[in-house]
Amino acid sequence: MLTRRTPISIPDAQAKIANLPLKPQTEIIPTIEANHRVLAKPALASYDYPHFRRSGMDGYAILAEDDHDFPREFKVVGEVPAGATWDQPLQPGTTVRIMTGAAVPTEASKVIRIEKTRPSKDGKTVRMLTTESHSNITEIGTDFHAGDEVLATNQEINPGGIAALTAFGVEQVTVYQQPRIAILATGSELLQPGEPIETGKIYNSNGPMLKRLVEETGGIVDFEAQLPDEPEQLKDALEKVIQTHEIVITDGGVSVGDYDFIGDAARQADNLLFNKVKQRPGSVTTAFVQDGTFVMALSGNPGACFVGFYLYVEPLIRRYQHRPSRIKEVKGILAKPYTKTNGYDRVLRCTYEFKDGQFLVYPNGTDRSGSLANLQTTTCFCVIPHSEKPIALNAEVTTWLLPFKS
Amino acid sequence: MLTRRTPISIPDAQAKIANLPLKPQTEIIPTIEANHRVLAKPALASYDYPHFRRSGMDGYAILAEDDHDFPREFKVVGEVPAGATWDQPLQPGTTVRIMTGAAVPTEASKVIRIEKTRPSKDGKTVRMLTTESHSNITEIGTDFHAGDEVLATNQEINPGGIAALTAFGVEQVTVYQQPRIAILATGSELLQPGEPIETGKIYNSNGPMLKRLVEETGGIVDFEAQLPDEPEQLKDALEKVIQTHEIVITDGGVSVGDYDFIGDAARQADNLLFNKVKQRPGSVTTAFVQDGTFVMALSGNPGACFVGFYLYVEPLIRRYQHRPSRIKEVKGILAKPYTKTNGYDRVLRCTYEFKDGQFLVYPNGTDRSGSLANLQTTTCFCVIPHSEKPIALNAEVTTWLLPFKS
Repeated sequence: MLTRRTPISIPDAQAKIANLPLKPQTEIIPTIEANHRVLAKPALASYDYPHFRRSGMDGYAILAEDDHDFPREFKVVGEVPAGATWDQPLQPGTTVRIMTGAAVPTEASKVIRIEKTRPSKDGKTVRMLTTESHSNITEIGTDFHAGDEVLATNQEINPGGIAALTAFGVEQVTVYQQPRIAILATGSELLQPGEPIETGKIYNSNGPMLKRLVEETGGIVDFEAQLPDEPEQLKDALEKVIQTHEIVITDGGVSVGDYDFIGDAARQADNLLFNKVKQRPGSVTTAFVQDGTFVMALSGNPGACFVGFYLYVEPLIRRYQHRPSRIKEVKGILAKPYTKTNGYDRVLRCTYEFKDGQFLVYPNGTDRSGSLANLQTTTCFCVIPHSEKPIALNAEVTTWLLPFKS
Repeated sequence: MLTRRTPISIPDAQAKIANLPLKPQTEIIPTIEANHRVLAKPALASYDYPHFRRSGMDGYAILAEDDHDFPREFKVVGEVPAGATWDQPLQPGTTVRIMTGAAVPTEASKVIRIEKTRPSKDGKTVRMLTTESHSNITEIGTDFHAGDEVLATNQEINPGGIAALTAFGVEQVTVYQQPRIAILATGSELLQPGEPIETGKIYNSNGPMLKRLVEETGGIVDFEAQLPDEPEQLKDALEKVIQTHEIVITDGGVSVGDYDFIGDAARQADNLLFNKVKQRPGSVTTAFVQDGTFVMALSGNPGACFVGFYLYVEPLIRRYQHRPSRIKEVKGILAKPYTKTNGYDRVLRCTYEFKDGQFLVYPNGTDRSGSLANLQTTTCFCVIPHSEKPIALNAEVTTWLLPFKS
């Protein structure tokens, strides 16, 4: 059935998704697993750090009252390797040998580094040549005091943050969840991997592509299916994954033809965001919310599917995690002719170079919706505004730099 | 034993590692697992793509001899959904209904899209209002001819490349291996996770930090250990992991003190690259090759360990995978005073902003080697050259922008 649709602009479609209220969930996970996750609660220091007076050097600890008239002889009364403590009071005229990172005796005021000393052969005495301008002791609480924020809420944890957390023995952190995402590839033309190729049939390439796009964006793909154009089967699958996922991505089944199953689901949904966008490729791109789940229906055409993911899905997956989109919008210069005109804005697959302070943008081969030859090498999109006249060479064009593509 | 060392400059130390001959290994892995891996052999098209004449629209297929004098009535003799074929010869005056992506009958020259047609109520005939300026048919081999390179050697596969490979049913690809890396954290002061904190002891924070740094660089950490300062135990562990790993990273045990086990191993190694670098923090940083394995001995001080990983290990891990380093060297402007002087170049933990075409660089809190408070928020390093005078404000400084840190 041919159903009329009301197309909206690309920015309007993006805004409808950006304005969706989200309730990001949090979870408690092991600190060691939290690299690149975003903290939902601050991590506080449970004690002063360092929690003991730590020697910054290999050397000899001395009392303040002995810190004059060098060179000077000391009696060596013991040794404090890293991990050990010295539990006897340090007496005037005596010293303990101490290692970097070891606990300095309570009474000591300074560590004379080993390079400035000459121990006797039997090790029982040491001659210290000069004093030091610094104490070479890191005092208790130099880095953090108990109760200080080690990491603040909304920070994306990185390996340096993991070091700080593990230094406090913080074994778990509260972070925003990664959204769980289902991918439904539709089309009776889709072969299963390993099936022999035949006329009219193709391998499912959008499904694997979307899976990796979602994953490198931080989403979790925990359901994938490949479904024929059978209304009942598709309806059942869609209803099921809507109950169990934050986001559902479909590809195919959104054209204007007889097999517009997803289009029907969209029209009956709780909240139809849009079912036509003034864009090429992928004007049939459809988005709706059903039972609190966001459903993104992308075109089955590889080029349109690829563009649609970046324009509409990437920012949402990132927002669930409290992370900014990795797509950078810049002003580009169209540095190679593009002459086709269109009644809709065209999102053109391109490459770019940054030269003399400008992003020079080059159309990357074909602009056909069905082509997948240029997806690997495309590093940005530029927008060719709808017009009856071809765009001028060197025109300024809105450009989106894609992540992982430099 | 206090052993003399000959310090070399940071660039010289980096060059020694960059010039190490590598024999990167390749492996065959499933295409779906190959995101961000680098192809070691080109992937070739096994057949023309598309391999059948594919309709780009929902519509009606017609013969060239009927493509005139519109509007025009056709008899509808059948329907070709996606995945199906039409095996009878198409006769003049007849048409088949065809879906986007479906195989166009051999004799047909054009698909008139559905929006330009008016089917009869019983569906047995269709009135076509106008012709089309394009055929709406993607001909065989439009994207690739059999034998074409789908992806070239040395390309880092991305989701778009996975789409192209799976479209050809390419289920496996030959890629460069990720190096297998062992991490040995040393020090009798290290507690196991969960052990109660006590004076003189600390939790191992460098080990977890290094693990995540290695992993986000593309290396595989498949051995981690935390070892006390016991020469025999450390020697055994080191010898074992050298036999089974491409890279070994140690932290701690490289100071000038009595417990310089790693330093001893370095001096006895097949190829000592360096055991002292004219840098702060981390002058004791040591690198050597033993039995073909690269051993990087980083300081146990968190700040020095963090700096040392980026300066010396990250580029090597990337090179094993045939991927460029993600650390970007730029010219920065020191936009906040730094007054300390040093006999060695100082690699200062900083943040930066890009403003009016310049990278403005700000020292990020403390420069103490033992501090881990600023590792999370550090986004770049700048180099303060050794000097007897403090560096001028707004001086140009070599700056390294760190990955995953924007």
